[in-house]
Amino acid sequence: MSRPSSTGPSANKPCSKPPPPPQTPHAPSPAAPPAAATISAAGPGSSAVPAAAAVISGPGAGGGAGPYATTGCSLTLHHTEKPEHEDICEYRPYSCPCPGASCKWQGSLEAVMSHLMHAHKSITTLQGEDIVFLATDINLPGAVDWVMMQSCFGHHFMLVLEKQEKYEGHQQFFAIVLLIGTRKQAENFAYRLELNGNRRRLTWEATPRSIHDGVAAAIMNSDCLVFDTAIAHLFADNGNLGINVTISTCCQ
Amino acid sequence: MSRPSSTGPSANKPCSKPPPPPQTPHAPSPAAPPAAATISAAGPGSSAVPAAAAVISGPGAGGGAGPYATTGCSLTLHHTEKPEHEDICEYRPYSCPCPGASCKWQGSLEAVMSHLMHAHKSITTLQGEDIVFLATDINLPGAVDWVMMQSCFGHHFMLVLEKQEKYEGHQQFFAIVLLIGTRKQAENFAYRLELNGNRRRLTWEATPRSIHDGVAAAIMNSDCLVFDTAIAHLFADNGNLGINVTISTCCQ
Repeated sequence: MSRPSSTGPSANKPCSKPPPPPQTPHAPSPAAPPAAATISAAGPGSSAVPAAAAVISGPGAGGGAGPYATTGCSLTLHHTEKPEHEDICEYRPYSCPCPGASCKWQGSLEAVMSHLMHAHKSITTLQGEDIVFLATDINLPGAVDWVMMQSCFGHHFMLVLEKQEKYEGHQQFFAIVLLIGTRKQAENFAYRLELNGNRRRLTWEATPRSIHDGVAAAIMNSDCLVFDTAIAHLFADNGNLGINVTISTCCQ
Repeated sequence: MSRPSSTGPSANKPCSKPPPPPQTPHAPSPAAPPAAATISAAGPGSSAVPAAAAVISGPGAGGGAGPYATTGCSLTLHHTEKPEHEDICEYRPYSCPCPGASCKWQGSLEAVMSHLMHAHKSITTLQGEDIVFLATDINLPGAVDWVMMQSCFGHHFMLVLEKQEKYEGHQQFFAIVLLIGTRKQAENFAYRLELNGNRRRLTWEATPRSIHDGVAAAIMNSDCLVFDTAIAHLFADNGNLGINVTISTCCQ
Protein backbone atom coordinates (compact mmCIF):
# COMPACT_ATOMS: atom_id res chain seq x y z
CA MET A 1 0.00 0.00 0.00
CA SER A 2 1.35 3.42 -0.92
CA ARG A 3 1.30 6.19 1.61
CA PRO A 4 0.58 9.63 0.20
CA SER A 5 1.94 12.59 2.09
CA SER A 6 -0.46 14.91 3.84
CA THR A 7 0.43 18.25 2.36
CA GLY A 8 -2.77 19.82 1.12
CA PRO A 9 -4.30 23.04 2.44
CA SER A 10 -6.38 22.86 5.57
CA ALA A 11 -9.35 25.18 6.10
CA ASN A 12 -9.37 24.51 9.82
CA LYS A 13 -6.80 22.83 11.96
CA PRO A 14 -7.84 19.37 13.04
CA CYS A 15 -9.18 19.56 16.57
CA SER A 16 -6.56 18.39 19.02
CA LYS A 17 -8.72 17.88 22.09
CA PRO A 18 -9.79 14.29 22.74
CA PRO A 19 -13.00 13.30 20.97
CA PRO A 20 -16.12 12.83 23.09
CA PRO A 21 -16.56 9.40 24.61
CA PRO A 22 -18.20 6.99 22.22
CA GLN A 23 -21.66 5.52 22.83
CA THR A 24 -22.99 8.60 24.63
CA PRO A 25 -25.67 10.09 22.41
CA HIS A 26 -26.40 13.77 22.96
CA ALA A 27 -28.37 16.44 21.17
CA PRO A 28 -27.10 17.36 17.71
CA SER A 29 -24.58 20.16 17.90
CA PRO A 30 -25.52 23.34 16.04
CA ALA A 31 -24.47 23.53 12.42
CA ALA A 32 -21.00 24.98 12.01
CA PRO A 33 -18.96 25.82 8.92
CA PRO A 34 -17.44 22.64 7.51
CA ALA A 35 -14.01 21.81 8.79
CA ALA A 36 -11.45 20.36 6.44
CA ALA A 37 -8.34 18.26 6.82
CA THR A 38 -5.82 16.72 4.53
CA ILE A 39 -5.80 13.01 4.83
CA SER A 40 -2.92 10.62 4.71
CA ALA A 41 -3.30 6.99 3.90
CA ALA A 42 -3.84 4.51 6.70
CA GLY A 43 -0.41 3.32 7.68
CA PRO A 44 0.43 -0.29 8.31
CA GLY A 45 -0.37 -1.17 11.91
CA SER A 46 3.15 -2.17 12.80
CA SER A 47 2.77 -0.85 16.32
CA ALA A 48 -0.68 -2.30 16.93
CA VAL A 49 -1.04 -3.32 20.55
CA PRO A 50 -3.81 -5.79 21.32
CA ALA A 51 -4.62 -3.83 24.46
CA ALA A 52 -8.06 -5.24 24.94
CA ALA A 53 -8.28 -8.29 22.72
CA ALA A 54 -11.27 -10.43 23.54
CA VAL A 55 -10.83 -14.04 24.59
CA ILE A 56 -11.78 -16.07 21.58
CA SER A 57 -12.41 -19.75 21.96
CA GLY A 58 -12.13 -22.10 19.01
CA PRO A 59 -15.30 -23.24 17.25
CA GLY A 60 -16.91 -26.12 19.10
CA ALA A 61 -17.74 -29.39 17.38
CA GLY A 62 -21.38 -30.44 17.05
CA GLY A 63 -24.20 -28.33 18.51
CA GLY A 64 -24.07 -26.03 21.51
CA ALA A 65 -22.73 -22.60 22.28
CA GLY A 66 -20.88 -20.68 19.57
CA PRO A 67 -17.30 -19.42 19.74
CA TYR A 68 -18.41 -16.06 21.14
CA ALA A 69 -20.22 -17.46 24.19
CA THR A 70 -17.34 -16.26 26.36
CA THR A 71 -17.78 -12.69 25.09
CA GLY A 72 -21.52 -12.68 25.73
CA CYS A 73 -23.40 -14.60 23.04
CA SER A 74 -26.02 -16.82 24.68
CA LEU A 75 -27.30 -18.56 21.54
CA THR A 76 -27.24 -22.34 21.29
CA LEU A 77 -27.16 -23.48 17.69
CA HIS A 78 -26.84 -26.63 15.64
CA HIS A 79 -23.37 -26.85 14.16
CA THR A 80 -24.79 -26.35 10.65
CA GLU A 81 -26.22 -23.00 11.72
CA LYS A 82 -23.05 -21.78 13.35
CA PRO A 83 -21.01 -20.45 10.41
CA GLU A 84 -23.87 -18.22 9.26
CA HIS A 85 -24.53 -16.91 12.76
CA GLU A 86 -20.86 -16.33 13.51
CA ASP A 87 -20.62 -13.87 10.63
CA ILE A 88 -23.32 -11.66 12.10
CA CYS A 89 -22.97 -12.42 15.82
CA GLU A 90 -22.73 -9.11 17.63
CA TYR A 91 -20.40 -10.67 20.19
CA ARG A 92 -17.88 -11.52 17.48
CA PRO A 93 -14.79 -9.44 18.28
CA TYR A 94 -14.25 -6.25 16.31
CA SER A 95 -11.27 -6.11 13.99
CA CYS A 96 -9.24 -2.97 13.53
CA PRO A 97 -11.35 -0.93 11.05
CA CYS A 98 -8.37 0.52 9.20
CA PRO A 99 -8.56 -0.56 5.58
CA GLY A 100 -5.93 -2.92 4.34
CA ALA A 101 -5.14 -6.13 6.14
CA SER A 102 -1.94 -5.00 7.84
CA CYS A 103 -3.29 -4.48 11.38
CA LYS A 104 -4.34 -7.73 13.00
CA TRP A 105 -5.81 -6.21 16.18
CA GLN A 106 -9.12 -7.55 17.44
CA GLY A 107 -11.06 -6.56 20.53
CA SER A 108 -14.32 -5.28 21.93
CA LEU A 109 -16.22 -2.34 20.44
CA GLU A 110 -15.37 -0.25 23.51
CA ALA A 111 -11.64 -0.81 22.86
CA VAL A 112 -11.65 0.20 19.19
CA MET A 113 -11.19 3.94 19.69
CA SER A 114 -8.37 3.53 22.17
CA HIS A 115 -6.71 1.10 19.74
CA LEU A 116 -7.00 3.66 16.92
CA MET A 117 -5.67 6.49 19.09
CA HIS A 118 -2.69 4.46 20.25
CA ALA A 119 -1.80 2.36 17.23
CA HIS A 120 -2.91 4.64 14.39
CA LYS A 121 -2.00 8.07 15.69
CA SER A 122 -1.63 9.50 12.18
CA ILE A 123 -5.37 9.37 11.51
CA THR A 124 -6.83 12.88 11.62
CA THR A 125 -10.07 13.51 13.50
CA LEU A 126 -12.43 16.37 12.74
CA GLN A 127 -15.38 17.44 14.88
CA GLY A 128 -18.73 18.27 13.31
CA GLU A 129 -21.55 16.95 11.19
CA ASP A 130 -20.38 18.63 8.02
CA ILE A 131 -16.71 18.42 7.16
CA VAL A 132 -14.42 18.19 4.14
CA PHE A 133 -12.47 14.98 3.64
CA LEU A 134 -9.54 16.17 1.52
CA ALA A 135 -7.65 13.28 -0.03
CA THR A 136 -4.25 14.36 -1.29
CA ASP A 137 -2.29 12.93 -4.22
CA ILE A 138 -5.12 10.87 -5.66
CA ASN A 139 -2.95 10.14 -8.69
CA LEU A 140 -0.58 7.95 -6.69
CA PRO A 141 -0.28 4.63 -8.54
CA GLY A 142 -1.53 1.35 -7.15
CA ALA A 143 -4.03 0.57 -4.41
CA VAL A 144 -4.24 3.42 -1.91
CA ASP A 145 -6.46 4.13 1.10
CA TRP A 146 -7.24 7.51 2.65
CA VAL A 147 -8.76 7.45 6.11
CA MET A 148 -9.97 10.01 8.61
CA MET A 149 -12.31 10.17 11.58
CA GLN A 150 -15.31 12.41 12.02
CA SER A 151 -16.87 12.94 15.46
CA CYS A 152 -20.44 14.12 15.86
CA PHE A 153 -23.65 13.18 17.64
CA GLY A 154 -21.49 11.60 20.37
CA HIS A 155 -20.16 9.01 17.94
CA HIS A 156 -17.07 8.43 15.88
CA PHE A 157 -17.30 7.77 12.17
CA MET A 158 -14.49 6.50 9.97
CA LEU A 159 -14.33 7.96 6.46
CA VAL A 160 -12.59 5.75 3.93
CA LEU A 161 -11.59 6.49 0.34
CA GLU A 162 -10.09 3.47 -1.37
CA LYS A 163 -8.55 3.30 -4.82
CA GLN A 164 -8.30 -0.14 -6.29
CA GLU A 165 -8.50 -2.11 -9.49
CA LYS A 166 -11.61 -4.24 -9.01
CA TYR A 167 -11.59 -4.87 -12.75
CA GLU A 168 -8.26 -5.25 -14.50
CA GLY A 169 -7.05 -2.08 -16.13
CA HIS A 170 -9.87 -0.01 -14.61
CA GLN A 171 -8.99 1.85 -11.44
CA GLN A 172 -11.92 2.98 -9.36
CA PHE A 173 -12.42 4.99 -6.19
CA PHE A 174 -14.77 3.81 -3.44
CA ALA A 175 -15.81 6.17 -0.65
CA ILE A 176 -17.79 5.14 2.39
CA VAL A 177 -18.62 6.06 5.98
CA LEU A 178 -18.41 3.53 8.82
CA LEU A 179 -19.74 3.93 12.35
CA ILE A 180 -17.50 2.90 15.21
CA GLY A 181 -20.53 1.11 16.63
CA THR A 182 -22.94 -1.72 16.07
CA ARG A 183 -25.06 -2.34 13.01
CA LYS A 184 -28.12 -1.37 15.05
CA GLN A 185 -26.57 1.96 16.07
CA ALA A 186 -25.59 2.65 12.46
CA GLU A 187 -29.25 2.47 11.42
CA ASN A 188 -29.88 5.71 13.32
CA PHE A 189 -27.66 7.73 11.00
CA ALA A 190 -27.42 8.76 7.38
CA TYR A 191 -24.45 10.19 5.54
CA ARG A 192 -23.95 12.18 2.36
CA LEU A 193 -20.76 12.26 0.30
CA GLU A 194 -20.57 15.03 -2.25
CA LEU A 195 -18.07 15.88 -4.97
CA ASN A 196 -18.40 19.43 -6.25
CA GLY A 197 -16.83 20.65 -9.44
CA ASN A 198 -17.26 23.10 -12.25
CA ARG A 199 -21.05 23.04 -12.76
CA ARG A 200 -21.09 19.37 -11.76
CA ARG A 201 -22.00 17.57 -8.56
CA LEU A 202 -21.97 13.88 -7.67
CA THR A 203 -23.74 12.86 -4.46
CA TRP A 204 -24.15 9.55 -2.63
CA GLU A 205 -26.47 9.24 0.37
CA ALA A 206 -26.79 6.10 2.45
CA THR A 207 -26.73 4.56 5.92
CA PRO A 208 -23.28 4.20 7.48
CA ARG A 209 -21.90 0.69 7.73
CA SER A 210 -20.90 -0.66 11.13
CA ILE A 211 -17.18 -1.35 11.43
CA HIS A 212 -18.34 -4.85 12.39
CA ASP A 213 -19.28 -5.32 8.73
CA GLY A 214 -16.27 -3.49 7.36
CA VAL A 215 -15.78 -1.99 3.90
CA ALA A 216 -14.91 -5.05 1.81
CA ALA A 217 -18.49 -6.25 1.26
CA ALA A 218 -19.73 -2.73 0.50
CA ILE A 219 -17.01 -2.25 -2.09
CA MET A 220 -17.68 -5.67 -3.59
CA ASN A 221 -21.36 -4.72 -4.03
CA SER A 222 -20.59 -1.11 -5.07
CA ASP A 223 -22.79 -0.10 -2.12
CA CYS A 224 -20.88 3.15 -1.65
CA LEU A 225 -19.82 6.15 -3.71
CA VAL A 226 -18.04 4.69 -6.73
CA PHE A 227 -16.25 6.74 -9.35
CA ASP A 228 -13.47 6.19 -11.81
CA THR A 229 -10.27 8.16 -12.35
CA ALA A 230 -11.85 10.27 -15.13
CA ILE A 231 -14.57 11.47 -12.71
CA ALA A 232 -11.97 12.00 -10.00
CA HIS A 233 -10.11 14.32 -12.37
CA LEU A 234 -13.30 16.27 -13.12
CA PHE A 235 -13.54 17.10 -9.41
CA ALA A 236 -9.93 17.11 -8.24
CA ASP A 237 -7.87 20.24 -7.86
CA ASN A 238 -4.16 19.80 -8.42
CA GLY A 239 -4.33 16.09 -7.56
CA ASN A 240 -6.31 16.66 -4.37
CA LEU A 241 -9.91 15.61 -4.05
CA GLY A 242 -12.25 17.24 -1.53
CA ILE A 243 -15.26 15.18 -0.49
CA ASN A 244 -17.95 16.97 1.50
CA VAL A 245 -19.16 14.63 4.21
CA THR A 246 -22.38 15.29 6.09
CA ILE A 247 -23.70 13.02 8.83
CA SER A 248 -27.26 13.30 10.07
CA THR A 249 -29.50 11.42 12.44
CA CYS A 250 -32.57 9.83 11.01
CA CYS A 251 -35.84 9.13 12.72
CA GLN A 252 -37.34 5.77 12.01
CA MET B 1 -27.87 -3.45 -30.36
CA SER B 2 -30.64 -5.16 -28.46
CA ARG B 3 -34.05 -3.60 -28.27
CA PRO B 4 -35.81 -3.98 -24.94
CA SER B 5 -39.58 -4.06 -24.99
CA SER B 6 -41.44 -1.26 -23.35
CA THR B 7 -43.64 -3.09 -20.87
CA GLY B 8 -43.10 -1.46 -17.52
CA PRO B 9 -45.75 0.39 -15.52
CA SER B 10 -46.44 3.99 -16.41
CA ALA B 11 -47.47 6.49 -13.76
CA ASN B 12 -48.86 8.88 -16.35
CA LYS B 13 -49.58 8.31 -19.98
CA PRO B 14 -47.05 9.98 -22.22
CA CYS B 15 -48.51 13.19 -23.54
CA SER B 16 -49.73 12.73 -27.11
CA LYS B 17 -50.14 16.32 -28.13
CA PRO B 18 -47.30 17.75 -30.21
CA PRO B 19 -44.48 19.23 -28.16
CA PRO B 20 -44.08 23.00 -28.14
CA PRO B 21 -42.03 24.44 -30.99
CA PRO B 22 -38.34 24.37 -30.23
CA GLN B 23 -36.30 27.55 -29.76
CA THR B 24 -39.21 29.55 -28.35
CA PRO B 25 -38.34 30.30 -24.74
CA HIS B 26 -41.28 30.97 -22.47
CA ALA B 27 -41.80 31.29 -18.75
CA PRO B 28 -41.15 28.11 -16.74
CA SER B 29 -44.31 26.09 -16.41
CA PRO B 30 -45.54 25.57 -12.84
CA ALA B 31 -44.18 22.54 -11.01
CA ALA B 32 -46.31 19.47 -11.59
CA PRO B 33 -46.08 15.93 -10.20
CA PRO B 34 -43.39 14.04 -12.08
CA ALA B 35 -44.61 12.14 -15.10
CA ALA B 36 -43.16 8.75 -15.90
CA ALA B 37 -42.82 6.67 -19.00
CA THR B 38 -41.35 3.33 -19.89
CA ILE B 39 -38.61 3.71 -22.38
CA SER B 40 -37.72 1.52 -25.28
CA ALA B 41 -34.34 1.49 -26.89
CA ALA B 42 -33.64 3.75 -29.81
CA GLY B 43 -34.52 1.77 -32.91
CA PRO B 44 -32.29 1.65 -35.93
CA GLY B 45 -33.16 4.54 -38.23
CA SER B 46 -34.08 2.39 -41.21
CA SER B 47 -36.81 4.79 -42.26
CA ALA B 48 -34.77 7.93 -41.72
CA VAL B 49 -35.69 10.54 -44.30
CA PRO B 50 -33.16 13.32 -44.86
CA ALA B 51 -36.04 15.79 -45.11
CA ALA B 52 -33.96 18.86 -44.48
CA ALA B 53 -30.37 17.80 -44.95
CA ALA B 54 -28.05 20.74 -45.25
CA VAL B 55 -26.02 21.28 -48.36
CA ILE B 56 -22.50 20.24 -47.43
CA SER B 57 -19.67 21.19 -49.67
CA GLY B 58 -16.37 19.36 -49.63
CA PRO B 59 -13.43 20.82 -47.71
CA GLY B 60 -11.60 23.40 -49.76
CA ALA B 61 -7.88 23.20 -50.41
CA GLY B 62 -5.57 25.84 -48.97
CA GLY B 63 -6.92 28.83 -47.03
CA GLY B 64 -10.32 30.47 -47.39
CA ALA B 65 -13.86 29.64 -46.38
CA GLY B 66 -14.56 26.39 -44.54
CA PRO B 67 -16.87 23.60 -45.65
CA TYR B 68 -19.83 25.12 -43.78
CA ALA B 69 -19.68 28.50 -45.54
CA THR B 70 -22.77 27.54 -47.52
CA THR B 71 -24.69 26.88 -44.32
CA GLY B 72 -23.75 30.19 -42.77
CA CYS B 73 -20.17 30.14 -41.46
CA SER B 74 -18.42 33.36 -42.47
CA LEU B 75 -14.97 32.55 -41.08
CA THR B 76 -11.93 32.58 -43.33
CA LEU B 77 -9.18 30.36 -41.98
CA HIS B 78 -5.79 29.04 -42.94
CA HIS B 79 -6.03 25.40 -43.97
CA THR B 80 -4.08 24.32 -40.86
CA GLU B 81 -6.74 25.91 -38.65
CA LYS B 82 -9.66 24.33 -40.45
CA PRO B 83 -9.86 20.83 -38.93
CA GLU B 84 -9.98 22.24 -35.40
CA HIS B 85 -12.59 24.84 -36.27
CA GLU B 86 -14.73 22.37 -38.21
CA ASP B 87 -15.22 20.26 -35.06
CA ILE B 88 -16.75 23.17 -33.18
CA CYS B 89 -18.23 25.23 -36.03
CA GLU B 90 -21.83 25.95 -35.13
CA TYR B 91 -22.77 25.76 -38.80
CA ARG B 92 -21.59 22.16 -39.02
CA PRO B 93 -24.71 20.11 -39.76
CA TYR B 94 -26.37 18.31 -36.87
CA SER B 95 -26.35 14.54 -36.90
CA CYS B 96 -29.31 12.50 -35.70
CA PRO B 97 -28.89 12.53 -31.88
CA CYS B 98 -30.15 8.96 -31.40
CA PRO B 99 -27.38 6.93 -29.79
CA GLY B 100 -25.85 4.20 -31.89
CA ALA B 101 -24.53 4.86 -35.34
CA SER B 102 -27.44 3.37 -37.28
CA CYS B 103 -29.16 6.59 -38.37
CA LYS B 104 -27.06 8.58 -40.83
CA TRP B 105 -29.35 11.61 -41.04
CA GLN B 106 -27.77 15.05 -40.95
CA GLY B 107 -29.42 18.45 -41.20
CA SER B 108 -29.99 21.79 -39.59
CA LEU B 109 -30.84 22.23 -35.92
CA GLU B 110 -34.33 23.38 -36.87
CA ALA B 111 -34.91 20.08 -38.69
CA VAL B 112 -33.81 17.76 -35.88
CA MET B 113 -37.18 17.53 -34.10
CA SER B 114 -39.11 16.87 -37.28
CA HIS B 115 -36.58 14.18 -38.18
CA LEU B 116 -37.03 12.54 -34.75
CA MET B 117 -40.83 12.71 -34.98
CA HIS B 118 -40.90 11.18 -38.44
CA ALA B 119 -38.03 8.72 -38.38
CA HIS B 120 -37.94 7.72 -34.69
CA LYS B 121 -41.64 7.65 -33.83
CA SER B 122 -41.10 5.12 -31.03
CA ILE B 123 -39.33 7.64 -28.80
CA THR B 124 -41.59 8.70 -25.96
CA THR B 125 -41.89 12.38 -25.06
CA LEU B 126 -42.92 13.63 -21.63
CA GLN B 127 -43.80 17.22 -20.76
CA GLY B 128 -42.47 18.83 -17.60
CA GLU B 129 -39.35 19.81 -15.72
CA ASP B 130 -39.47 16.85 -13.36
CA ILE B 131 -40.15 13.44 -14.85
CA VAL B 132 -39.26 9.78 -14.33
CA PHE B 133 -37.20 8.08 -17.02
CA LEU B 134 -38.09 4.42 -16.49
CA ALA B 135 -35.71 2.11 -18.31
CA THR B 136 -37.13 -1.40 -18.61
CA ASP B 137 -35.20 -4.65 -18.75
CA ILE B 138 -31.86 -3.24 -17.72
CA ASN B 139 -30.52 -6.80 -17.46
CA LEU B 140 -30.66 -7.31 -21.22
CA PRO B 141 -27.24 -8.53 -22.31
CA GLY B 142 -24.92 -6.55 -24.54
CA ALA B 143 -24.81 -2.86 -25.40
CA VAL B 144 -28.24 -1.28 -25.02
CA ASP B 145 -29.54 2.28 -25.26
CA TRP B 146 -32.68 3.72 -23.70
CA VAL B 147 -33.86 7.05 -25.04
CA MET B 148 -36.70 9.43 -24.32
CA MET B 149 -37.51 13.09 -24.83
CA GLN B 150 -38.41 15.63 -22.18
CA SER B 151 -40.03 18.96 -23.12
CA CYS B 152 -39.88 21.94 -20.83
CA PHE B 153 -38.90 25.61 -20.85
CA GLY B 154 -39.82 25.68 -24.54
CA HIS B 155 -37.03 23.26 -25.37
CA HIS B 156 -36.63 19.56 -26.07
CA PHE B 157 -34.14 17.48 -24.14
CA MET B 158 -33.03 13.97 -25.03
CA LEU B 159 -32.45 11.61 -22.10
CA VAL B 160 -30.05 8.77 -22.83
CA LEU B 161 -29.16 5.73 -20.74
CA GLU B 162 -26.45 3.65 -22.35
CA LYS B 163 -25.12 0.30 -21.17
CA GLN B 164 -21.76 -0.65 -22.56
CA GLU B 165 -18.53 -2.39 -21.75
CA LYS B 166 -15.99 0.45 -21.79
CA TYR B 167 -13.61 -1.86 -19.92
CA GLU B 168 -13.59 -5.53 -20.83
CA GLY B 169 -15.69 -7.65 -18.50
CA HIS B 170 -17.07 -4.59 -16.69
CA GLN B 171 -20.47 -3.40 -17.87
CA GLN B 172 -21.37 0.15 -16.93
CA PHE B 173 -24.37 2.41 -17.34
CA PHE B 174 -24.00 6.01 -18.52
CA ALA B 175 -26.90 8.45 -18.20
CA ILE B 176 -26.92 11.93 -19.67
CA VAL B 177 -29.18 14.76 -20.81
CA LEU B 178 -28.73 16.46 -24.18
CA LEU B 179 -30.36 19.67 -25.37
CA ILE B 180 -31.78 19.75 -28.88
CA GLY B 181 -30.05 23.08 -29.28
CA THR B 182 -26.69 24.77 -29.50
CA ARG B 183 -23.88 24.55 -26.98
CA LYS B 184 -24.59 28.17 -26.04
CA GLN B 185 -28.27 27.43 -25.37
CA ALA B 186 -27.33 24.40 -23.27
CA GLU B 187 -25.34 26.64 -20.91
CA ASN B 188 -28.62 28.16 -19.72
CA PHE B 189 -29.80 24.88 -18.20
CA ALA B 190 -28.86 22.41 -15.51
CA TYR B 191 -30.12 18.86 -15.04
CA ARG B 192 -30.24 16.42 -12.15
CA LEU B 193 -30.39 12.64 -12.48
CA GLU B 194 -31.34 10.78 -9.33
CA LEU B 195 -31.51 7.11 -8.45
CA ASN B 196 -33.53 6.41 -5.31
CA GLY B 197 -33.42 3.13 -3.45
CA ASN B 198 -33.76 1.64 -0.02
CA ARG B 199 -32.09 4.32 2.14
CA ARG B 200 -29.73 5.11 -0.69
CA ARG B 201 -29.60 7.90 -3.26
CA LEU B 202 -27.18 8.59 -6.09
CA THR B 203 -27.37 12.01 -7.75
CA TRP B 204 -25.57 13.61 -10.68
CA GLU B 205 -26.02 17.30 -11.50
CA ALA B 206 -24.51 18.99 -14.53
CA THR B 207 -25.09 21.15 -17.59
CA PRO B 208 -26.83 19.42 -20.50
CA ARG B 209 -24.69 18.66 -23.54
CA SER B 210 -25.73 20.04 -26.90
CA ILE B 211 -26.67 17.35 -29.42
CA HIS B 212 -24.00 19.03 -31.56
CA ASP B 213 -21.43 17.50 -29.19
CA GLY B 214 -23.26 14.20 -28.76
CA VAL B 215 -22.84 11.63 -26.01
CA ALA B 216 -19.68 9.77 -27.08
CA ALA B 217 -17.19 12.29 -25.69
CA ALA B 218 -19.12 12.62 -22.42
CA ILE B 219 -19.15 8.86 -21.95
CA MET B 220 -15.47 8.61 -22.83
CA ASN B 221 -14.67 11.18 -20.09
CA SER B 222 -17.24 9.80 -17.63
CA ASP B 223 -18.75 13.30 -17.66
CA CYS B 224 -22.21 11.95 -16.91
CA LEU B 225 -23.91 9.71 -14.34
CA VAL B 226 -21.85 6.51 -14.35
CA PHE B 227 -22.77 3.38 -12.42
CA ASP B 228 -22.08 -0.30 -12.70
CA THR B 229 -24.50 -3.23 -12.77
CA ALA B 230 -24.20 -3.80 -9.00
CA ILE B 231 -25.37 -0.23 -8.32
CA ALA B 232 -28.10 -0.61 -10.95
CA HIS B 233 -29.37 -3.64 -9.03
CA LEU B 234 -29.39 -1.70 -5.75
CA PHE B 235 -31.83 0.76 -7.33
CA ALA B 236 -33.73 -1.35 -9.86
CA ASP B 237 -37.10 -2.87 -9.20
CA ASN B 238 -37.78 -6.10 -11.04
CA GLY B 239 -35.26 -5.28 -13.76
CA ASN B 240 -36.63 -1.77 -14.29
CA LEU B 241 -34.69 1.30 -13.32
CA GLY B 242 -36.41 4.62 -12.63
CA ILE B 243 -34.25 7.71 -13.00
CA ASN B 244 -35.70 10.98 -11.73
CA VAL B 245 -34.80 13.71 -14.18
CA THR B 246 -35.13 17.38 -13.26
CA ILE B 247 -34.27 20.20 -15.63
CA SER B 248 -33.86 23.74 -14.40
CA THR B 249 -32.80 27.05 -15.85
CA CYS B 250 -29.73 28.66 -14.44
CA CYS B 251 -28.94 32.32 -14.25
CA GLN B 252 -25.42 33.20 -15.13
